[in-house]
Formats: sequence, C-alpha cells, structure tokens
Amino acid sequence: MKKTHIDIIDPIHDFVRVYDSELKIIDTPIFQRLRRIRQLSSAHLIYPGAQHTRFEHSLGVMHIASMAGHALYEKGLISVDDIQNLRFAGLLHDIGHGPFSHIFEELLQKKRHSHEDIGKEIILKTKIGDLISKNGYDKRFITKMAFGDSKFQFLNEIISGALSADIMDYLLRDGHFTGAEHAKIDHNRLTFSLDVYKNKLALDKSALVNFETMMISRYQMFKAVYFHKTVRAGEVMLLESMNLAEEELELTSMNLDDYLKLSDEVILSKLLSLPEHNSKLKTAKKIATDYQNRNLFKPVFELALTGTTITKKRMRDIREELSKSSKVDINEIFVDSSNTSSIPLSPSKKESKSIILLEVDNNKTKAKEIQISNIQLVSVMSGFMKILRVYTPAKNRKKVEMAAKSILGDLK
Amino acid sequence: MKKTHIDIIDPIHDFVRVYDSELKIIDTPIFQRLRRIRQLSSAHLIYPGAQHTRFEHSLGVMHIASMAGHALYEKGLISVDDIQNLRFAGLLHDIGHGPFSHIFEELLQKKRHSHEDIGKEIILKTKIGDLISKNGYDKRFITKMAFGDSKFQFLNEIISGALSADIMDYLLRDGHFTGAEHAKIDHNRLTFSLDVYKNKLALDKSALVNFETMMISRYQMFKAVYFHKTVRAGEVMLLESMNLAEEELELTSMNLDDYLKLSDEVILSKLLSLPEHNSKLKTAKKIATDYQNRNLFKPVFELALTGTTITKKRMRDIREELSKSSKVDINEIFVDSSNTSSIPLSPSKKESKSIILLEVDNNKTKAKEIQISNIQLVSVMSGFMKILRVYTPAKNRKKVEMAAKSILGDLK
Amino acid sequence: MKKTHIDIIDPIHDFVRVYDSELKIIDTPIFQRLRRIRQLSSAHLIYPGAQHTRFEHSLGVMHIASMAGHALYEKGLISVDDIQNLRFAGLLHDIGHGPFSHIFEELLQKKRHSHEDIGKEIILKTKIGDLISKNGYDKRFITKMAFGDSKFQFLNEIISGALSADIMDYLLRDGHFTGAEHAKIDHNRLTFSLDVYKNKLALDKSALVNFETMMISRYQMFKAVYFHKTVRAGEVMLLESMNLAEEELELTSMNLDDYLKLSDEVILSKLLSLPEHNSKLKTAKKIATDYQNRNLFKPVFELALTGTTITKKRMRDIREELSKSSKVDINEIFVDSSNTSSIPLSPSKKESKSIILLEVDNNKTKAKEIQISNIQLVSVMSGFMKILRVYTPAKNRKKVEMAAKSILGDLK
Amino acid sequence: MKKTHIDIIDPIHDFVRVYDSELKIIDTPIFQRLRRIRQLSSAHLIYPGAQHTRFEHSLGVMHIASMAGHALYEKGLISVDDIQNLRFAGLLHDIGHGPFSHIFEELLQKKRHSHEDIGKEIILKTKIGDLISKNGYDKRFITKMAFGDSKFQFLNEIISGALSADIMDYLLRDGHFTGAEHAKIDHNRLTFSLDVYKNKLALDKSALVNFETMMISRYQMFKAVYFHKTVRAGEVMLLESMNLAEEELELTSMNLDDYLKLSDEVILSKLLSLPEHNSKLKTAKKIATDYQNRNLFKPVFELALTGTTITKKRMRDIREELSKSSKVDINEIFVDSSNTSSIPLSPSKKESKSIILLEVDNNKTKAKEIQISNIQLVSVMSGFMKILRVYTPAKNRKKVEMAAKSILGDLK
Repeated sequence: MKKTHIDIIDPIHDFVRVYDSELKIIDTPIFQRLRRIRQLSSAHLIYPGAQHTRFEHSLGVMHIASMAGHALYEKGLISVDDIQNLRFAGLLHDIGHGPFSHIFEELLQKKRHSHEDIGKEIILKTKIGDLISKNGYDKRFITKMAFGDSKFQFLNEIISGALSADIMDYLLRDGHFTGAEHAKIDHNRLTFSLDVYKNKLALDKSALVNFETMMISRYQMFKAVYFHKTVRAGEVMLLESMNLAEEELELTSMNLDDYLKLSDEVILSKLLSLPEHNSKLKTAKKIATDYQNRNLFKPVFELALTGTTITKKRMRDIREELSKSSKVDINEIFVDSSNTSSIPLSPSKKESKSIILLEVDNNKTKAKEIQISNIQLVSVMSGFMKILRVYTPAKNRKKVEMAAKSILGDLK
Repeated sequence: MKKTHIDIIDPIHDFVRVYDSELKIIDTPIFQRLRRIRQLSSAHLIYPGAQHTRFEHSLGVMHIASMAGHALYEKGLISVDDIQNLRFAGLLHDIGHGPFSHIFEELLQKKRHSHEDIGKEIILKTKIGDLISKNGYDKRFITKMAFGDSKFQFLNEIISGALSADIMDYLLRDGHFTGAEHAKIDHNRLTFSLDVYKNKLALDKSALVNFETMMISRYQMFKAVYFHKTVRAGEVMLLESMNLAEEELELTSMNLDDYLKLSDEVILSKLLSLPEHNSKLKTAKKIATDYQNRNLFKPVFELALTGTTITKKRMRDIREELSKSSKVDINEIFVDSSNTSSIPLSPSKKESKSIILLEVDNNKTKAKEIQISNIQLVSVMSGFMKILRVYTPAKNRKKVEMAAKSILGDLK
Repeated sequence: MKKTHIDIIDPIHDFVRVYDSELKIIDTPIFQRLRRIRQLSSAHLIYPGAQHTRFEHSLGVMHIASMAGHALYEKGLISVDDIQNLRFAGLLHDIGHGPFSHIFEELLQKKRHSHEDIGKEIILKTKIGDLISKNGYDKRFITKMAFGDSKFQFLNEIISGALSADIMDYLLRDGHFTGAEHAKIDHNRLTFSLDVYKNKLALDKSALVNFETMMISRYQMFKAVYFHKTVRAGEVMLLESMNLAEEELELTSMNLDDYLKLSDEVILSKLLSLPEHNSKLKTAKKIATDYQNRNLFKPVFELALTGTTITKKRMRDIREELSKSSKVDINEIFVDSSNTSSIPLSPSKKESKSIILLEVDNNKTKAKEIQISNIQLVSVMSGFMKILRVYTPAKNRKKVEMAAKSILGDLK
Repeated sequence: MKKTHIDIIDPIHDFVRVYDSELKIIDTPIFQRLRRIRQLSSAHLIYPGAQHTRFEHSLGVMHIASMAGHALYEKGLISVDDIQNLRFAGLLHDIGHGPFSHIFEELLQKKRHSHEDIGKEIILKTKIGDLISKNGYDKRFITKMAFGDSKFQFLNEIISGALSADIMDYLLRDGHFTGAEHAKIDHNRLTFSLDVYKNKLALDKSALVNFETMMISRYQMFKAVYFHKTVRAGEVMLLESMNLAEEELELTSMNLDDYLKLSDEVILSKLLSLPEHNSKLKTAKKIATDYQNRNLFKPVFELALTGTTITKKRMRDIREELSKSSKVDINEIFVDSSNTSSIPLSPSKKESKSIILLEVDNNKTKAKEIQISNIQLVSVMSGFMKILRVYTPAKNRKKVEMAAKSILGDLK
C-alpha cells in the first residue's frame, strides 16, 4: 500500500517528502514550537537573512537521514523499517532545544542537563511518543538513535557527527539564509557513498574530496558566522543576561509544560521586563535592553589558541586578572572561547574524531580508519578554530584592551 | 571625501552597501521593528523557509533603487544627490507597514487609511526625519518619492510600480526564501536599461525580454505563493480575527507610539488571549487559536474571473447568498478575491498600466508606449490572476461547496 | 554483488553514476564522436557559453531516465532490469545524430531518413549492440525503447516526449551553458511523480505546477535561444550551404563508417574548401565562408502564425513570390519557420499531445487525460511559438523587407 | 554621446556589455580563433562540461577588469580613458595563446618564447592594433598593460596576478563549466574593494575574507581539476606527442599567419596523421592515438613536495633513474610536476607574492603589506599544491611503480 504523503517545498532540498505519520508529529504544538526558535540565535543581527528556525532544519535532517538510509538499504545493510526509524530520529533530534538554541544549552549544562535529556523526555513522555508507537515503531529505539545511544553506532552517526545529516543540513541551510557561503556541499554524493564497517559509519574513499570540501565549508562558516565577532557579542550578551536572571526566572528548572512555552521572543520579552530588585537583575535587564537596541559589547582582544585548549577554570581566572588589571568591574568583562558549547560546532564528547574510508581493490574491500585531524587541511583549519576573545561594553573598551594585551599577549 | 559605510551580507544581493547616514536610520527602534514583520504574513505555514521580514526587503529595495539611480546618473538624467534621495526613499518605502503587512493594510483601508499615510507620518514626525535633515537631505521630498507623490514620476516609479526596485526585490527575495521559484530576474540588466521619457520611467527595448521574464515570475509566484489556497486560508483567518477584534483592540486607531510596538507575534498573542465578552470576540479568539494550531479554513470553491472585476459589494452579496443557500452562519463563510489589497500584487491605483520602450534607430531615439496588458503573455497571465475563492471551516465543507457550485457555477 | 561504477561530475546533475557496462559503450569511438557535435549547432555564435555537446546530454538523459525508472520501480510498476533498459535507451537515444544535430536532420529528411534510423542501425549492427548483448540485455528491445517503438508506451515516453528525460535534460543543460535561463525545472519532483495509466506515462496531479513551469521554461528558451533570430540566421546558412553541396559531398548517402567520421568541425571545413565547379558550389562555399566570418543573413520580416500551420509547399511559394516582387535572386531569400525539423522543439509525430493526471481521492485513484494545449498558459505560449521569418544577405535587406511587408503583411 | 553597445549573455556575468570598438576586434578572425582553443585543454575528458574556450574567458576578463577600473575611477584614482584601456587589455591578454593553452606554452618556452610575446606581436602588428588606434587609444600602452609591462603596476595587476580579473574569471568559469566547484568568489566585493598604494594594487582590509575564500577555491580547483591525475595524464600525453613531433611540424617556429590557423582540433588531427619516418614520429603518433581513444597514461606514484621546489634538471635525472631501475624505456616514463608552466596556476615570475591591505582608522588610511604566504590557510594550501607525479603507459605500471617507490619514497 502506498503511504500518503505531502511534499513541503524547501529552498535547500527543493522538496521534503513528509509521510502521514510524520505530519501528525509535525502538527503538534510541541513540534510547531521549533518555528519560534531561530537556528542561529543572534546571527540575524549581522546577517539579516538568518531568520530560519529549528523547524525547517529538523525537516531537512529527516530528509538527509532518509537519503543516507536509502543508500545503506540499497547496499543491503539495513531494513526498510530502519529508514523510517532514521527519519523519525532525524526529525526529532532537536526537539528538546531551548530558545536561542545553543545559548540555552550552556545554561542547561550548569544543571548537568542538556537538550538531549529534554528531547528524550519529550519523545518518551508526550503525545509525540504515542504517535510513533501508534504507527508501530519503537519510540525507545528512536530516542536512542536520535541522541547517540543506540547500539548501532553507524545509525547514531547518521544523525549526529562528522558525516551526519545534521551537519550537512545546517551548513547548507545556514549558508543559504545568511548569504555568507555558497560552497557546494555535495550531500547527494556523500550520502550515496556511505557504508558501514564494524558497526561504524564509513565512507567510500572516492568521496573523500567531498568530505574535505564540507570541512572547508565548516571552517568558512565558523569564521564568517558561527564565531563572527559581532554575532558572538550578541550571544555572549544573551547568555550573560539569562545567567544573571536565572534565579528570578528559573528558566532551567521549570517543568516540561512551561519549558515548551518558551521561545526566542518570549525569553527576550521576559528579560526586557525583569524586575529590578537587585543589581544582578538590573544588569540582566540592562544587557537585554542593550541587545535589543543593538548596543552590543565590543570585542577588544582576540587570540588564536593553536593547539592549546583552555579550561573553564582558566577562563574564569583570566576574567579576574583582566578585572584587576583594568580596574573594570568583573561583571563587565566577558571571556569567550570557541570551544564553548554555545556555538554549533563545539566538539561533543560523542563526535567521532576519525573517519573510516573504504576502497575496493581487486574486488576486495579495504578499510582504513584515518583521524580527521590527519587530513592535512582539516587539521590546519581546526587549529585556526580555537580562539579566545574578550568583550566589554563600549565605555570600557580602551582599558580592557590594554589589560588584555599585557596579560594575554603571550598566552600562547 | 569618502563616505563611511558598512557592507551587509545579503543572500539576494551578495552585499548591500549601507552608508553611515543610512545606518543611523536603520539602527532606530522604529526601523528595527521591521525585523518583526514577516514579508509574507502566512506563507511560512506552507513554505517553512519564508521567515524573511520587511527589514531585509527594505535594505534590498534601497540597494536596487541605488542601482537604478546610478544608471540614470550615468546617462546624465539625475544628480548624485538624487541617487541618495532614491536610497532613502527605497529604504523607507515600507516603514509604515503594520503587522502581517498587507493583511493589516486591509484593516486600515476601512478607516480610509493606509501604510503609506503612516509611513509619511513616521518620516516627517519622528527621529527618522531628523536624521535625514541632519544629513542635508529634504525629508519632505523623500517622503513624496517614497509614496508616489513627487512631481518626478520616474523617480516615484523607481520605488514602486511595474519596473520598480520594490517588485524586483520582493520577487527575488520571496523566491529565495520560500524555495518556490528560482527564475532569473535580471535586475542588473533591467536597472541598467532604465531611461526617462517625458518624465516617465522608460526601458531600453532590448530589455523587454527581461521585463517579460519578470512578469512570468510574478505570475508563478502569484500562483505558488501569494494566492496559494492554503497560504490565503491563513491570511483570511488573520484578517477575519482582527476584524472581529477591532472594537476591542482598536488596532487601527491607536496613536503612532503604540502602533510602533505592534509586530506579527504581538498581535497574534493579543488575539489568542482576547476576552470572551461577546460572540464576536469569542469567534475572533477561536479563529486565532485555529490559526495557531494550523487548523485552517478549507477552500471549497474557486472561480477564474477572466476579464471581470468583482466589487466589494458583490462579494458581500455572494457571502449572504451562500449563507442562505447552505444554511451555514454567514460568519463561517469567507469570500476571497485576488484583487483584495491584502495580497502583495494587488493593482494599486497609482501603478502604471503601460510601459515605455525606447529604441535607438539611426542615432535617433524612438519611444513607444505600450500597455502592459498588450504584451501578449502578460495579458494572458493577468487574466489567470483574477480569482474568486470561497473558504469555510472544515465542518461546513460539503454544504458550502454545494451552495457555491449552484450559485457561482455560472458567474462567468 | 555490487556493480562497479564511476561517477562523472556534471554541472547539471552534480554527478552521473556510470556502471561498467555503460562505460564500455561510452568509451567506443562511436559514442565519443558525440563530443564533437554541439548540442545547439549555432547558438554559441550568440551565447558563447553554448559549447556543450550531445555527449554530456546523453549522459544526462541516461541519468534522468534512471531516476524515472527508480520511481516506477518503487511503485511496483517495472522491474530492476527495466531500469537498466531505460538507462541504455537514454544513453543511446541521440547516438545517430549527425553533425549540427537538428540541421543535419533536415537534410536527412529529404531522403526519408532520420537520425533515429541511423541510431537503430548503430545499436543493432555495431560494437555497441554487442556490448549490450554481452551484458545480458536485449539490444532489440532497447533500440525500440530509444526510438519510441516499444509496445510499452510509457517506457518510450520516458525517453522522448513532453515528460521525458530528454526534454528535462536539454532545458536544464541549454539554460546552464547559454546562461539564458535559470528557471527551476524540478526534475526530481517530476520524475518522482511519474506513474503509469493504461500503458501510458502519467503524472501525479500535485506535480502539474512543475509541468507548467517546465513548459514556461521551454517557451522562454524557444524565444531566447532555439528560435532566436540570429541563432537561426546561422542555422539557416548552414542548412542552405549543406543543401547546395549535397550532390558534391553526398553527406546523406554515405555508408555508416564514413558517417561516423563526421563532426561539426569536419563538415564546416569541407564546406569551406568546396571546389567551385558550378554556381551551386560557389554559393555553398560563399555562405559557409560568411558563416565562419559571422557575416550572417539578416532577418527582414517576422510573422506570428497564431493558430495557422504553414506547409513546405506554401513556404516555397512565398520564397518565389518574394523573389519576383523584390527582384532578388531566389537563392538569396530564405523563409524559415519554427515548425521546421531543424529546431529542437519541433513537434514530432509521436510526441504525446495530452498528459494524464492521476489524483488519489478517498483511496481511489482517478485518472484524467488532458490535452496539453488545454493547459491555459501552455496553449497560449504554443501559439506564440509559431513564427515565420524571412532572411536575406545584408545587401538585399531593404528590397526583401519591402516585398515581405507587402506580400506577407496580411498573411494572417 | 552614448557609445553603441551590445550585451552578450554569459552564464558567469549574466551579460557582458561590449562596445562597438571592442566588437570590431572580437569579430576579427584572429580573435574568433580563440573559440577553437579550449580553456582547459584536457579537462573535458574527465569533466565533460569543460568545453569552454579562451573566447568566453577573454570577454569575462574584459568585464571584470572594467568593474575594477570603475571602482578605481570612483575613488578618483584613474581616468575614464584608463577604464577603456583596461577593457582592451583584459580582452586581449590571452590573444597570443596557442592551441591547448598552457600545454603549447611549455613548447614555446623551449624556444625562449611565450604566448605573451606572440600576443604583443598580434596587438602591435595586425589589424587588431589598427582597430585600437583608430579609436584613439594607444596600442603600445595597452600591450604593456596586457602583459605586465606598464609602469603603472596596479594596472598590470588588474589584468594578471593574485587579485586580477584573470584569476577571478577563470575560477568562476572553470567551476561553472566543469561542475567541480561552486564556491562563491565574490568578484563584486573584491573589485569594489580595490585600491592603490604606492603604485601597487591594494585591497580594503574588510575584503580579506573574500580574498581568502578565493584562494581556497583556487586550491580546490587545483586538486579537482587543474592537477587532477587523469586530466594531467591527458595533458602530459599531448605535451609529449607535440614535443616528439616538433621537428616535423615546426609548431613553434611558424610565422604568425600560420600560427593563427592552429586550433586544438587542427593540432590533434596533425598529430593523428603524422608520417612514421622514424621512431620519434611513430611514438608521437601512437601517443596521440592513445589520447584520442582515451587510452591514457597511468599515474603510478605521487609525492607531496612540501616546501621543496624541484628543478627541470632534477626531473630529468629522476626520469633516467626510474628508467634504469625499472628497465622501462625512458620514453615511456613521464615525470610531471605541479610547477610546470603547463598548468594554469604556475607561479609566473611577475606574480605578486604579497598583497597590500588598507584600513581606515580614525580617518587615517593605514597600509600593510602582507606576504600571501603569510595568510595562514593560504600558506598551508600552497604547500599542498607542490606535487611530483610519475606516469607511464598501462603495460609498465607495476615496474615503474616499484622503481618509483624505491627511488622517490624518501625524496622529501
């Protein structure tokens, strides 16, 4: 029997086929909420086109995961049902995201909590899980797949990781909507070339060039958008304001129902209308107001941390030293680092650091596992993506700049 | 002296150069408000990518108006100052728009009011006008140009009309963000080919093919997006809900300060939390809730009005007849027509119905004014763009469909 | 067992997968010959980018035919082997084409011969057929499919006709290489939506809009490229020169081996170095030389034949009348018509004039056959594509123009 | 007075405006010859779309040079006449190119000759120079500009070098026609941002990111196309065959008139029909025949020469050693290196190794000259672009591979 479907027009994939069972999920208020969470929290301040949301991205990930699934199915590696499992997992991989996406994630982390945890709760305990079950699929298995916990690592890797539907969709989509990049990420070629080796996702060697191109594109998007100095200024402000308001708003400890009412605009209006009981709340409100008026923090110092990684502790120390040396209040000094979890490219623990290449030679398949960091250009670019930056409100610019130069000038 | 500028990256124009005097205007809260008014009020329900706003469009219109200005300047037809005037007029031509753009416009019309009136007030009476004056430009002249009232008709036409920066930008932009269309509108060629004849905007005959292509693209966007039956279902619902709530909310009679606080999301949340004093308000709230839950009105009948135009009065009569015949409450029957002012392509009174083509023959310039409706294909397509549609909530579908067929089946 | 393949990078399809059995065919000199036959014989004179050949197009048709095949296979309508049959048929559908593609076709027609006849001979009698047989496929069946003679009409229609891989590939490819058009022909959507009804190819109704868009694109390409007045000037010259040289060169009566040595450049150099025994040959050589030097015939008159079709006989009569009236030698007057077989869009006898739309309603599939000419816009455009034109060398321009105006001014 | 012009449609630039004085040059047989010299001599064997020629590229370089000229003119740095000079120089910078472009260049070098020398001769001594003079421009100055010899270095640099119209056009064009790359090279932004500092071409610092993107694109094109191992196999074969046939054909010592009759196809047919007087000619003919039949040399060894440069002498030595060790005839072993002049990206002596960035700070312009090799990523990529490769006919594959591994395995 043919499954009923609709086709949703999408600027990245021309059209995304959505089957009836998926449409029912998409039409729940829980999923529709993703329409109110921008994919790139503050990027639209710099790239006005960047108004796209987690909603479209989720459809896109389902679409690419489905392509990847078909490729493995045609090679006899998975069943038709697993294609559908991959579709559900792709559709729902971001369902737990809070407002301002990765920014909220950093708040959650302090509670040893993550959007993945919330996502699991949503799939398992709300109507969404019921809709999956009613269609005869296993919501527990899909949840595991969506968040990297299934025992089939290669299925997890189709959802997230260096070769995932997630990265392919967001690079293409963020490039299209910002206008910053038009690099050709050949997701057709890449998904066609996927394979499995010892339970891990592998790539046909002939598509290595396409993988490299994608890594280059990631680097360019990192520089132009994800870690753009003004984009991050906005994000650092949102983070700071939410942090300061946390006791009052209890954003990270609310129950699921309340959580699901949050959106970018809702939180922003909460921050803009904070009571001014204490200095923390005053500052939080002030920062949000400055954000709204585009009166953004200024970057006063930047350092490439080639090689080195910098700990949270070290970042706090630097902040203190800068405050002492510059005589600027510590609450007006912000140290940002590109390996914070509030940027989309931060290396998650589970992200694979290697990639397996398969090559057919004399009808024998040879596998070779290479460290991503050993692909020459990729390794170089990764180095360039470790950056430390110092921000401060405009009025302190000179003082903090001087302090940073004297203290951090030789951090390397 | 060089003017300071920044370049804003834009997916349509690669980058939009913004001079300091313009940036000051853009950075006012009045202008930033446009970021919260979607270009296509309900289209994102069908085309998830259509999240773009009047903000980006306004930058784009400034950009194209500037290109048109340069073309005329190089032909010795206008001064450098007029390029700047065009830039300001392009930037501000939509500054008066209310939430849900053209939908709100229809509300305003009942008060014999328009976004143009509000736009004039904003430019002349707020900080925006001051910023223009401070830079040595004439805010009165710019206001006239922005809204079609200057005595130089060709300058007005660069801002709005069949060859305007407005139409070029919105077709390109709406196509890019919806994903519905990728027709090549060659705005480079079109603006390069602009000329002036007897105070009117003219086009070099060699670019007629590009004009025709643009008209085809407009037709395709009309069918696929602007008058798409589900997109319009959402818009008809918004319109109806706002109409019913007007006495309570006084959206169209508020003072300018309050008006400038409105946005798509703000109005929607007002409608969703209406008090339920009377049946009108109850219905208004119900419709808004259905809209939010994507429980949209159903189109039950459609008629091509080739040639004919249908009056507001006739539309009201049809509504009554349908109610009587179907025995469905008149408040649950909605007659929509493609020449309502709530769709972007509705013919404004001032829109030029002809286009002047210039041809150089033996070093003599010959002008020929042709009716747009006489360009064969365009005329045909215009006919196809006159459509009458009937909507009703799902439960009445059958009854209203039958009534419509019997009453309207022979309207032609 | 996996089939060995290579991926050929292609600007239209990103990459075209080519299996080993196909590669062996592609690597024969007979197939490589297609690299030396431009897709659009004279268009590169006007659109310098139009250097693409039948070679790339043939790969593209194989690719789209394969997509269409997969769509039917997934709906349970054909076997895996038929996908491969479609691939071979798509790859070889143009294998018989002579130099200057459609121009040569017109020469052949005089001998009641066609590129299809030659194509059949090539597949059945050369190494190409052997390569097919060796792989276990039926060269006779593939030949039938490639040239519209198989008893499965829907398979024939995937290769040529209004919904074919052929038209999709050439519109996309010609647009890309000329730069004339970027209309989005959604061949993914169209091929996905193919179906079969009573042995004919059908389309899911939801893709009707994509079919209409393709027809619009065809109209725009017709006007901008295929029947562009200067492009046709070049083609009319080639045709005339080859016609005059036919007795000497015997281009259309050579044996297959000699035929397979012909290419655009080879024929052009033959024409440029014709002996000048008689006035016919002198003229042929003169025209070829003028072509080479871009000293092209001038269009002096053009007439839209809305509705009417004009016979070959009538065209010859017009030529005579024009000669008499203008006192210009009949060999210097050329009457061109858009329904000559030397343009790519000429209606072949076998081209389907209707299209079948399928709609699922309450789980019942309803089919509706509509005349393509009844799709409103398409019908209008078809009318605009019937054109008669008169050409002459520059020196006779005035005389022939006047004669044409007086004789043909009222042909309608 | 307005200058008469036509607009040529071009897939890269939408349209290229061509003024009457330029059209006269373009319409000469000398210039039309460029239509018969492919931009990328053998790339079409791998990328079938790569049929584009020096003709389109020359128009494109004129177009971008003109944009660069306008940018400098608007900054008051050059006169209107210099824009026209730049246009002529851009149009003619490749006029001396021989068939197979850079391949022929390597032949010429042995005679201490270059396409630039021939280009100069063509502009100064043929009708082309006359056409320039007749329009009141100085053919001597234009010649200097076209080939890097004018005393205004920044004008030379607009034609060739790291920021030139040449590189921008060929990267965009080669990417479009091969389909290998779609990186966004923002030539609008780059040319807008050009400036002059101390007689050298400079770039506004804000466009550094666009320069970096272009360098990345160059790297990707180098790997995917220019130095692709199979593309180069074809080119090495052409070079070898022409070298062996040089005494017979005297390709590099013919007079200008004969030279101007050469084209890719003409030379190939000369090579295919060489007499077989001696073993050299026999081999030349054999190689050409193998090339024609796509029976290409096989790459058996590849070495990244990070840092090192390898001399012609060293390459000859390696060839000898490989022959001795493998016992394969030296004429069947070919050592290729990426810094040969037969690939488009070889560093010419005159290519600027540094780039000057201008930054405006407090209304003061600061200039900073940076080595291109000091732009981190660019430097890394340059390293990856130094490659040595060994080719041999298929039959010797194993022997030569083993010899190469033992001899060159430790060259680094």
